[in-house]
Amino acid sequence: MAVGPETFPSQMHPVAGFKLGVASAGIKTPGRRDVVLMEVAPESTVAGVFTLNAFCAAPVQICKRHLETHGARYLLTNTGNANAGTGAQGMSDAERCVAAVADLCGVASEEVLPFSTGVIGEPLPVDKILAVLGDAKADLKEDNWKLAAEGILTTDTRLKGASAQIEIGGETITITGISKGSGMIQPNMATMLGYVATDAKIAQPLLQQLLTNSTNRSFNRITVDSDTSTNDSCILAATGASGVEVSSDEDIATFAQAFDQVMVELAHAIVRDGEGATKFITIAVDKAAAQKEALDVAFTVAHSPLVKTALFASDANWGRILAAVGRAGVENLDIDALQIYLDDVCIVENGGRAAGYTEEAGSAVMAQEDIRIRIVLNRGDVSETVWTTDLSHDYVSINADYRS
Amino acid sequence: MAVGPETFPSQMHPVAGFKLGVASAGIKTPGRRDVVLMEVAPESTVAGVFTLNAFCAAPVQICKRHLETHGARYLLTNTGNANAGTGAQGMSDAERCVAAVADLCGVASEEVLPFSTGVIGEPLPVDKILAVLGDAKADLKEDNWKLAAEGILTTDTRLKGASAQIEIGGETITITGISKGSGMIQPNMATMLGYVATDAKIAQPLLQQLLTNSTNRSFNRITVDSDTSTNDSCILAATGASGVEVSSDEDIATFAQAFDQVMVELAHAIVRDGEGATKFITIAVDKAAAQKEALDVAFTVAHSPLVKTALFASDANWGRILAAVGRAGVENLDIDALQIYLDDVCIVENGGRAAGYTEEAGSAVMAQEDIRIRIVLNRGDVSETVWTTDLSHDYVSINADYRS
Repeated sequence: MAVGPETFPSQMHPVAGFKLGVASAGIKTPGRRDVVLMEVAPESTVAGVFTLNAFCAAPVQICKRHLETHGARYLLTNTGNANAGTGAQGMSDAERCVAAVADLCGVASEEVLPFSTGVIGEPLPVDKILAVLGDAKADLKEDNWKLAAEGILTTDTRLKGASAQIEIGGETITITGISKGSGMIQPNMATMLGYVATDAKIAQPLLQQLLTNSTNRSFNRITVDSDTSTNDSCILAATGASGVEVSSDEDIATFAQAFDQVMVELAHAIVRDGEGATKFITIAVDKAAAQKEALDVAFTVAHSPLVKTALFASDANWGRILAAVGRAGVENLDIDALQIYLDDVCIVENGGRAAGYTEEAGSAVMAQEDIRIRIVLNRGDVSETVWTTDLSHDYVSINADYRS
Repeated sequence: MAVGPETFPSQMHPVAGFKLGVASAGIKTPGRRDVVLMEVAPESTVAGVFTLNAFCAAPVQICKRHLETHGARYLLTNTGNANAGTGAQGMSDAERCVAAVADLCGVASEEVLPFSTGVIGEPLPVDKILAVLGDAKADLKEDNWKLAAEGILTTDTRLKGASAQIEIGGETITITGISKGSGMIQPNMATMLGYVATDAKIAQPLLQQLLTNSTNRSFNRITVDSDTSTNDSCILAATGASGVEVSSDEDIATFAQAFDQVMVELAHAIVRDGEGATKFITIAVDKAAAQKEALDVAFTVAHSPLVKTALFASDANWGRILAAVGRAGVENLDIDALQIYLDDVCIVENGGRAAGYTEEAGSAVMAQEDIRIRIVLNRGDVSETVWTTDLSHDYVSINADYRS
């Protein structure tokens, strides 16, 4: 079950200099595409952002180390096993995979980045993965985004992709990406991965800055269940194959806008496919005094089990939203000065139910699949938006029954 | 549905100087006992702790103001309506109730404390309450704790009480209390109330200190769904009717220990009656470097929907506990140095699954109704314990269906 129509683009524009190959290692399910190799052309730049979970998985630790000192030429992803909570053995397993790719492809180990997603705490079946590396390499091609989008999925019910083309200096620049994930963490399945490539030429420090900024407007603004995965990773590769360098302020702004759009589409696709989701919820906090309080309010509402169950029930239960705002820890919050809206319907003002509010108007909005909750704090000029889902019976079923 | 055997004591020792009276105002359900009046003898001291929610209800605001400047002689509680999110009207409604009690009982308005619990955002039916104040006053007696325990309930499925007697200076001191609540907030029903009385004589500043300290070891250490109510209040009254003054360090320690036990029993009773609860979960964090990090870890685990659904499923899914610990925001957490236990079974050590761990041993603990999760951080000598429930289908049903 996912919210709204399919979002995978009918056209995923290939990115010159970025190839993808897929293979079946039978890690968890025989015949399933579960190994994806990506090849980045020489002279490309690569940036990454990773989970802040202290228990970050072995592959995440290796990715961070390699990106600090080297570029990346190959990205190896397996599903079905997260190689997280696996201690020293997990680290050596990930290093064996990396070394095998390096050997096969004739690059240094430090130029290979490993990604794993799936069950936490089980030993990585390294031999199964190594056995199909040749297949994945033989399959490498630029026009292979859709199969790769399938190859990185775990319990996701949908392919997730986004693709854009823009003009810079009279030339066409392509930005294409895929993602996976249907909870911030999926229990044993750990979790969010994103890969975006462009044929623009972008210096590494700028590339990292673009990725970090955009992540803070997309993947870092979504939540399904507040549980941050041990394996979250997002990679941006710039091959430069277009011959167009993005370096002037104007070009950076043009690129950033299109890149943001791709990232937001990929992030939204994860929320729409959230575990048990029946609603897609936008929570906008306006006129906050600072970014932190805007995010505290937005995420407190987004994580409230009582707000989320009311959304599931299509119940315009504004008292739950009000109570969540009240406990978000905003100092000296003047409850009489704020307003709360469901889409365009004002539900709370002057410390209580809005004068003109009717249950009918609220219920009409709550019956929708896409709902916008807007909280106007009237304390400053900072805005933040986050996206989330409701909390349904299916969420409990999926997560209570998963391992059984 | 509640977890474990009934906990309401067969004997609730009366407290000399503290009387309770109950009446039926038909606020939400005809015939239900929904108004409780409590009378505190003159010369008593009274202390209170209240919700930190910025949207605190009108009665909570009045309680705080009155306690700052006056003692309290009468406590008026109604269920069925929280008088929260009701703006200026709610404040004047609460003041009308307070004034009526003051008139009826011949005390100043500032000596009356109002408490409301129930639906948020509906106008308080003041006239219904005023109409039965005489009934409640006529019913005032010291041996009325059980009826009062019933009179403060909302969606609770059980009476909640605790009662202790101790010897101080050769005399018997009684401590008796009642509480209500089955979520930190219940959607429209807002929420936790606690009333404890003793016949010891205790000066007000010390009484407030005892209540604050004990709250931080009991009510402030429980969570059902992380949603803090707009109406949470807990009151401690000391009538002094025993003639025994608690003021020496030794007597304070003796009293505090018994009082803590009463408060913890009342707090546990709320968790055991938590919405949809099928398990009673103790989360102990040991060897933390500071109280804040111990509580951050304990509450992050307690609030994790993935941990809570695994507990509901009796699934020894240690990866979810590990991931929650990892995202609790503890700086420089050394994941290889910590251990996690289910009761006495070590499930995580050296950054992964414990060497001697078997699924059978873990599953045996998870099948229990009472489960202790112990996280040993090995960073210092601070310990904290919190209590919570699992997250079940019934939680979603109760909160998605409540208003419909």
